[in-house]
Amino acid sequence: MQDDGSNGTRMNRRAFLRLLGATGGAAAVMGAMDAWDMALASTVEAPPLLSGRADGKRVIILGAGLAGMTAAYELAKLGYDTPILEARTFAGGRCQTARRGFVLTELTGETQRCMFDHNQFFNHGPWRIPYHHRSTLHYTKAFDVPLMIMVNDNDNAWDYRVEETNPWSGERRRRREFRADIGGYTAELLAKAVDQSALDQELTEEDKERLLDFLVAWGQLDRPSLEYRGTGGRGYEEDPGAGLNPGVPSQPFELSDVLRNSIINGFRAVEAHTQKNTMFEPVGGMDAIAQGFERVTGRFIHYGHEVLEIRQHEDGVRIVVADTRTGETREVEGDYCICTIPLSVLSRIPADFSPAFAEAIRAPTYATTGKMGLQFGRRFWEEDDFIYGGHSTTNVFGNISYPSYGWQGEKGTLMGYYNFGAQAIEVSARSPAERIRYALEMGSLVHPEVYEREFESGFSVAWHLVPYSMGGWASWSADARRDHYPTLNEPDGRVFLAGEHLSYMTGWMSGAIESAWIQIEKLHQHALTRAEAGVTRT
Amino acid sequence: MQDDGSNGTRMNRRAFLRLLGATGGAAAVMGAMDAWDMALASTVEAPPLLSGRADGKRVIILGAGLAGMTAAYELAKLGYDTPILEARTFAGGRCQTARRGFVLTELTGETQRCMFDHNQFFNHGPWRIPYHHRSTLHYTKAFDVPLMIMVNDNDNAWDYRVEETNPWSGERRRRREFRADIGGYTAELLAKAVDQSALDQELTEEDKERLLDFLVAWGQLDRPSLEYRGTGGRGYEEDPGAGLNPGVPSQPFELSDVLRNSIINGFRAVEAHTQKNTMFEPVGGMDAIAQGFERVTGRFIHYGHEVLEIRQHEDGVRIVVADTRTGETREVEGDYCICTIPLSVLSRIPADFSPAFAEAIRAPTYATTGKMGLQFGRRFWEEDDFIYGGHSTTNVFGNISYPSYGWQGEKGTLMGYYNFGAQAIEVSARSPAERIRYALEMGSLVHPEVYEREFESGFSVAWHLVPYSMGGWASWSADARRDHYPTLNEPDGRVFLAGEHLSYMTGWMSGAIESAWIQIEKLHQHALTRAEAGVTRT
Repeated sequence: MQDDGSNGTRMNRRAFLRLLGATGGAAAVMGAMDAWDMALASTVEAPPLLSGRADGKRVIILGAGLAGMTAAYELAKLGYDTPILEARTFAGGRCQTARRGFVLTELTGETQRCMFDHNQFFNHGPWRIPYHHRSTLHYTKAFDVPLMIMVNDNDNAWDYRVEETNPWSGERRRRREFRADIGGYTAELLAKAVDQSALDQELTEEDKERLLDFLVAWGQLDRPSLEYRGTGGRGYEEDPGAGLNPGVPSQPFELSDVLRNSIINGFRAVEAHTQKNTMFEPVGGMDAIAQGFERVTGRFIHYGHEVLEIRQHEDGVRIVVADTRTGETREVEGDYCICTIPLSVLSRIPADFSPAFAEAIRAPTYATTGKMGLQFGRRFWEEDDFIYGGHSTTNVFGNISYPSYGWQGEKGTLMGYYNFGAQAIEVSARSPAERIRYALEMGSLVHPEVYEREFESGFSVAWHLVPYSMGGWASWSADARRDHYPTLNEPDGRVFLAGEHLSYMTGWMSGAIESAWIQIEKLHQHALTRAEAGVTRT
Repeated sequence: MQDDGSNGTRMNRRAFLRLLGATGGAAAVMGAMDAWDMALASTVEAPPLLSGRADGKRVIILGAGLAGMTAAYELAKLGYDTPILEARTFAGGRCQTARRGFVLTELTGETQRCMFDHNQFFNHGPWRIPYHHRSTLHYTKAFDVPLMIMVNDNDNAWDYRVEETNPWSGERRRRREFRADIGGYTAELLAKAVDQSALDQELTEEDKERLLDFLVAWGQLDRPSLEYRGTGGRGYEEDPGAGLNPGVPSQPFELSDVLRNSIINGFRAVEAHTQKNTMFEPVGGMDAIAQGFERVTGRFIHYGHEVLEIRQHEDGVRIVVADTRTGETREVEGDYCICTIPLSVLSRIPADFSPAFAEAIRAPTYATTGKMGLQFGRRFWEEDDFIYGGHSTTNVFGNISYPSYGWQGEKGTLMGYYNFGAQAIEVSARSPAERIRYALEMGSLVHPEVYEREFESGFSVAWHLVPYSMGGWASWSADARRDHYPTLNEPDGRVFLAGEHLSYMTGWMSGAIESAWIQIEKLHQHALTRAEAGVTRT
């Protein structure tokens, strides 16, 4: 079922060079580098360049999430007929934004209607676009979706934790104090070790000199003592001002105390790829991306159509759907099917997949995860605490994440929690009203008094309880990636799967989009090959 | 001339507590803490709370920059008559934004008229507002000036340097590769030193365990080898994607090579206070702040009035001004004067200041500094290089700073250089057209070919050549701070100075604003004391 990766899927650079090396020798490899760089640029950042018409061919797309709409949009350009069957009454899949009037009924039957003020919103699904997610940014540009910065790091936010050895247990502190101190002490300790010749085996005399210069600058160390004494990086007791106020620098904590605070294990000198700046979100809510896709594919979408069965034969597919309003069922036929239904849901839908394919569908687990949006009548985090965006961290209930829009405005909506795993299950077992009470109680640890007092309105989601999603995203174990994941990346007969679950960027919009790009290329090749012999791709 | 700082200037917390301790003992100190905290909050974040009317008293304010307009706005609330004499034809002082039609004539006589497209602008004066500049943020909120994020750090930007020992000399590289590598190697070296007991004198067994855990997370080290092997933090050769593409991690450079690249001396584990996130700029240009002030003080401003002489007697002041259009001179009389004219300019204006005051005015130097705004027809830094905001760094001509607005738009305006000192003087000696040629030549080192090709329009400033500014900001040596700075913070007779030069935040808008806050409080106290005996402040 799976070959070397150079056939049917997009080749990676190494496979391409290996192939060229085998056929044309080193000179061909070198000569091809420029061409490859251009090809790479176009395939990674943009949809595949497909040629050859497939007019009249019908691809039934299951799901009007980003993967489904990407497939429909790109295939329609080639002449395909691309009806999209969508169970929900709106487009976007998990790319949702809670705003006034948004309604969510979880599998428990409880319904929430978002009551935020008109200028407030909360991205309870995807909420961040790192600069390197080229595929998502390809479409925000194509669809004129205005972007703004999502503040993903703000060390003036609070940290609150409860732990036995922590000298600040039960006391909120600014994250910056600890970030500066552990960075400064690390520089100091290494500088002293270098100075005392402890690393002479590892470093030349010249390297040592350069390393010392670097460490002094990096940790703002005193010279010649090589001591970290705290600087502006950890904040001032009293900020420098006008007149006769040069400011009062703050003093570092003791190293052994800092080491007893587990906050330090969350700081990074080498940051995670997906969390790096520049980080974006669309102006006005993440659903602007869904709406961008909807503008160009909306005419294909059949809302309120729930898939009951997926059937296929040698020449086509047959999808049984129910109209969710009337309950009436009907059959939709086509030449191909692109199914973007999350595997957590797909595994429950009758289909005549091969046994290996069916087994693979059941292989990943789906993330239990919940988010809470809380609207407050006053932006106390800005006005009282000078926190503009970013996250206050705790080891109790997770983080509070502050909005990156409406700076200095009257009201604001923050994320009261973003939980995972067992904690997400436990919190999701409560009613929406009880979840709000929980969020207010937890948030009051970080923002005492004001949190309950200024609260106006809440909206929560537990993605594992959301119909047609049943989980936040696919989680592949290493074993399942090896044994089952490749199976799902090939079509089963005339059914191609797509979605974030068929990517190494699970949980990200780019995973869904790029998965669709890969699968439509395969499908188009298949369709052209079947349509007429001798069609070549340019 | 100068007392202990508790009289006439705003007391700092220590002085306040010292005073209380001397008069009321420890109990009074403790009891006063709450009151102080409230007082501190109001004085640091907001204008002084002044009471007592001064109706009819006339304070002539020299300069409609932020300090002058702050003084006029706050004093007018107390009944003062506050005419502002402004030499320029617009308000804001150095708080300027270059946009289509903006005209600048430097002291050389050369005039530039900004030709940017209508939706393009360039902040050639102040361009950043850190979250802790409460006084600036006080007025952006008061005047409803919408803010957006200014991206001040982006390690996906380029670094380009020419240096003998640097293996990458003359070759642009992503900043993130070096930031990740030097952070990772620092963690590795310290972890190995700890592991090899080199720091046993400094650390307990327990501290060592905790430090190792931290370093492994911080530098993303391999365990148990404790080696840094490069991770996503330095970027991927090929990003993880969809389908069968798990990505190709990039490999770290050799430590000894990294140490030979002076870029590392610009990285910080302990960041500079003024450069920390969250960083703002007003939507649409920094001059939105000037315009906010102008909305509430514009009726006081006399434009095109250049100060020729500053005279005073025991009961008042007399200012000789020239109308810059007609050349006509006239005299303006008042009870007080608040002079916000930069000292570089004030030192050239005849005045009957005391000798010590006059000497102090000449004490600081003024920064030579220049900026270049370049409009391009295409945002190649975003489209080709995936750089969204932040700065590409060089050791050749300074930085290129990318715009934080208009993401993914058609055109864009970046900062082609921001130079200082001798380099600023040298570049400023060229004509505006020659400066553009220089900026294009330099920028082409970082963005070859495309830079010249996409260039559309440029606008430069050399602040030391700007009439009525004659420098970027005041630079106080330690000696001048000690010997002369305090003198200028006290009034000379009935003339009070204000401006960024009378702060420990020179060059920042908050310095100008807070200086005005301090001086109007002194002036008001003086006025009330003179007006009637027995007036008390509440």
